[in-house]
Amino acid sequence: MTKVTAQMSVSLDGCYTGPRDPQHPHDMSGWMQGPEAPGFFRVTRWAVDAMAWRERQGFAGGARSADSEIVAETFAAAGAYVMGRRMFDAGEVPWGDEPPFRAPVFVVTHRARAVLERRGGTSFTFVTEGLERAVELARAAAGGKDVAVAGGGELLQQVLAAGLLDQLELHIAPVLLGDGQRLFGPGLGLGADDGVELVPARVVDTPGVTHIRYTVSGRSKLVLDDRGASGDLVGRP
Amino acid sequence: MTKVTAQMSVSLDGCYTGPRDPQHPHDMSGWMQGPEAPGFFRVTRWAVDAMAWRERQGFAGGARSADSEIVAETFAAAGAYVMGRRMFDAGEVPWGDEPPFRAPVFVVTHRARAVLERRGGTSFTFVTEGLERAVELARAAAGGKDVAVAGGGELLQQVLAAGLLDQLELHIAPVLLGDGQRLFGPGLGLGADDGVELVPARVVDTPGVTHIRYTVSGRSKLVLDDRGASGDLVGRP
Repeated sequence: MTKVTAQMSVSLDGCYTGPRDPQHPHDMSGWMQGPEAPGFFRVTRWAVDAMAWRERQGFAGGARSADSEIVAETFAAAGAYVMGRRMFDAGEVPWGDEPPFRAPVFVVTHRARAVLERRGGTSFTFVTEGLERAVELARAAAGGKDVAVAGGGELLQQVLAAGLLDQLELHIAPVLLGDGQRLFGPGLGLGADDGVELVPARVVDTPGVTHIRYTVSGRSKLVLDDRGASGDLVGRP
Repeated sequence: MTKVTAQMSVSLDGCYTGPRDPQHPHDMSGWMQGPEAPGFFRVTRWAVDAMAWRERQGFAGGARSADSEIVAETFAAAGAYVMGRRMFDAGEVPWGDEPPFRAPVFVVTHRARAVLERRGGTSFTFVTEGLERAVELARAAAGGKDVAVAGGGELLQQVLAAGLLDQLELHIAPVLLGDGQRLFGPGLGLGADDGVELVPARVVDTPGVTHIRYTVSGRSKLVLDDRGASGDLVGRP
């Protein structure tokens, strides 16, 4: 059955890039020179060395590693993608004629645009009717495989906040960035008594990164317990 | 050799409690009724069920689990503690006559106070000469065992920012809080080109939590790589 999945590389303090440039928050043209890039390159470094990532980007070499297997498995499971507009803008030029997705991609945007067909099976369809509609279209296009949230982080958080995400895999890079764009925050719309509960489904630890896959249970109330004191007290006066 | 270690339970989005009460940020007396408590109780729930935690608190029961072994190992490794003033204030009453530390605790504070001797080997020494001095005193008192940062989160971040931390273990609870006090943030004092690098040393995954232990390598510059493009291009025009 088609699941909606997402995966993202993050720092140990939960950032998926460095901080956004306050002067040019929406300008992707100078992105490589801006403050987001160093953190992004650090948290995704584990993938760049992986053969399966390199193959999709059209690069030779790379390691046949557990990391590479996870990249390969992630690509193989996705029958269609949903993507944020900002990520599309950042990727359109560097992905070139043969983007790495090899599947239909549905871009959530306010700006209507004709479908772009690319080589290797990738197409970009621009969806102006909102996130839920994009997921619906991706589900229909996925051919029984999963719908994957391609990114970016803002879209991932929106998908989760909307209750649409079934599975989340984080690749936790062993670095603290201190400041940066955090994958999860107030945009989840949770009060102090609310949480989104998950269940760990698989942990793979490699020298450069810890991959944790979760099944998303959903939003639920947090409860105050009594710190276990309702059990028998031992040795207390 | 004595290491300086720290461990903390955090949500998957890096919070160790819910958000601080903006009306009473320094008042610990109403803490249990405030917005910090629900998140704190959720992220530490794994420990409350563990026999080794319960035994230290004077409670019967609990599970003999991998989680419990980690609690026991953590307590056993510590020969002395450093602690923040706010955590001490929150714990002084509930810990009672026989606090769970069973070792000398050095509280970093601006407020001088006589040493408190408690039963079971715990003492609280109030250090007004700063964090480094507290670590130095704890090192001398640790008897060759480790100096553990007892918390809270602010002190842990200060110890790390000061370059004093050798080992960090995070217990990552499978929950997103969205908002709350984050263990690491701008207080690390890192620019967009800087990171604190760590090396994963051990991962233990249990049904309720993922324990990741890191060796702290230290602060270093982040680099922009070329995304692997210096390798041979395959199949690109």
